[in-house]
Amino acid sequence: MSDKTYDVVGLGSAIVDAITHADDAFVQEWGIEKGGMTLIDEPRAHLLYDAMGPASETSGGSAANTVAGVASFGGRSAFIGTVRDDQLGEIFRHDIRACGVDYDVPAGTEGPSTARCLILVTPDAQRSMSTYLGISSLVDPADVDEALVASSKVVYCEGYLWDMPQTIEAIEKAFDRAREAGGKVSFALSDGHCVDRHREDFLRLVDERVDILFANEHEICSLYPGDGFEDAVEDVRNHCEIAVLTRSEQGSVVVTADETLRIPAEPTEVVDTTGAGDLYAAGFLYAYTQGLDLTTCARLGSAAAAEVISHLGARPEIALSEIAGRVLV
Amino acid sequence: MSDKTYDVVGLGSAIVDAITHADDAFVQEWGIEKGGMTLIDEPRAHLLYDAMGPASETSGGSAANTVAGVASFGGRSAFIGTVRDDQLGEIFRHDIRACGVDYDVPAGTEGPSTARCLILVTPDAQRSMSTYLGISSLVDPADVDEALVASSKVVYCEGYLWDMPQTIEAIEKAFDRAREAGGKVSFALSDGHCVDRHREDFLRLVDERVDILFANEHEICSLYPGDGFEDAVEDVRNHCEIAVLTRSEQGSVVVTADETLRIPAEPTEVVDTTGAGDLYAAGFLYAYTQGLDLTTCARLGSAAAAEVISHLGARPEIALSEIAGRVLV
Repeated sequence: MSDKTYDVVGLGSAIVDAITHADDAFVQEWGIEKGGMTLIDEPRAHLLYDAMGPASETSGGSAANTVAGVASFGGRSAFIGTVRDDQLGEIFRHDIRACGVDYDVPAGTEGPSTARCLILVTPDAQRSMSTYLGISSLVDPADVDEALVASSKVVYCEGYLWDMPQTIEAIEKAFDRAREAGGKVSFALSDGHCVDRHREDFLRLVDERVDILFANEHEICSLYPGDGFEDAVEDVRNHCEIAVLTRSEQGSVVVTADETLRIPAEPTEVVDTTGAGDLYAAGFLYAYTQGLDLTTCARLGSAAAAEVISHLGARPEIALSEIAGRVLV
Repeated sequence: MSDKTYDVVGLGSAIVDAITHADDAFVQEWGIEKGGMTLIDEPRAHLLYDAMGPASETSGGSAANTVAGVASFGGRSAFIGTVRDDQLGEIFRHDIRACGVDYDVPAGTEGPSTARCLILVTPDAQRSMSTYLGISSLVDPADVDEALVASSKVVYCEGYLWDMPQTIEAIEKAFDRAREAGGKVSFALSDGHCVDRHREDFLRLVDERVDILFANEHEICSLYPGDGFEDAVEDVRNHCEIAVLTRSEQGSVVVTADETLRIPAEPTEVVDTTGAGDLYAAGFLYAYTQGLDLTTCARLGSAAAAEVISHLGARPEIALSEIAGRVLV
């Protein structure tokens, strides 16, 4: 894979997060699913924003966080996703580029505004997300630069993005071009509700197109409903080359045709779980594209996840290359 | 003063901060005055923003930070200042209201966009600010609600706002109405360059209109140039009822006609000095409007400043009422 310009190209929702602390009563009063991601429309986004506490705005988005993490490790990454030509769009574009990620999709000049995600962090460090997708759910197949995806070792897409027909077409185009050019295709299930909405599509995707699948325990059990996690491990084996299953403080499990690797989580004080899965994927894919073994991939994933949950917000606060230096000695 | 609805009404620039870490070389390369506030135009704001690192956006503005701090102590406060009807304006309005500050000035529907301040925090915890003022420098005298300022114990204005003729008219209107209604007038010199630009105006203001003046060592020495700080202390005495002079880690000095009180700074680990003066003023004015003695006013000011410099950003991260509880025992 050494002739490739990029390590990871990510496709995802381009979102600006507004993050604040809240108590459990507030989350309950607003009927927000604790720990989940709920889609909301613009009027509710305004109502909830008005009611929540003073916030900090930082760029987010699941796959965007992942490619930002890859760049922070020193990897070469790019992003494909959609913002409007508004102030939040400018913030998103600035932040992802300032992380060292190439991002050249032109901003939309009409239609809904840039996406925002209202994140409530409760005292138990759990994050509950309410997302107004705005223009981010609309990725035009024409915005998938064929030369870009063909020049990446891995093309990675978040499950959240799988919804609108034109966007699905864009994702399939990216996956096909990557595959044709000898790259790997990677997909994250993102959320249990995503899996519920698109189970047939996701099962077919994993079977036919995905080389490296990311899922947490809840998501993989939702994709292969049965008798719990260990059953799901057996179900996913052989449906894709590598399944990477994360289990929060219980660490992660990497499943291939002939191996099941179990890697402990990196201990840390948890402040805010936002971005944990995204940064795990960043560490894993960075190590993978450097040709490191799967145990090391999982260890770098755990280390990156530990960094991002030790502070508020979904992007790393220190250069992850420092963490790689510590883990790889 | 007990018949007043508000403790403090603040007039100031309505600004959203974009804050990031930077090294000294970057600050120097961009010709930014370290530790200062430099006004920039919109093209330079875009250039600098493009060049700086990934940022967090949080609401700021000097007097806005102060009234947010007063509310955090449990005081009743309101804000007068101007945003546009854009996304940054919505962020500013949300955050100040979510702090418990009343803010009802309608957003501008034309003209420049909401102000932004690009803040670079260097490893020595010093902040260097580059501000694109946008619409924030334009406060219409009609936006100064006469009933509001008349119903406040203190009307407080930042020196930064003193620039455009219509805005100066708005400030003078607010000061006059407050005074007529038996309230106190408070003013912060804000910045050495502000003093340089408006020395004659500021000298006359302090002499004729201001009851409580806030300044740091550099600013008061700039207003009364002479033989250093102790000379400036004698110069300002008798020009206003109370002069509150802050000296960073050397604490603060409260000067009245017949007293000079010296209060030590509250020791803390300094992460980012953004908002130190603003929050000092918040603590001082909160205590003052509760009828507490001047030493206690200064101690609450120091405690609030210590909280805000212990983390990134210009607004308190914990309820300052908790701090008041500790200081006032």
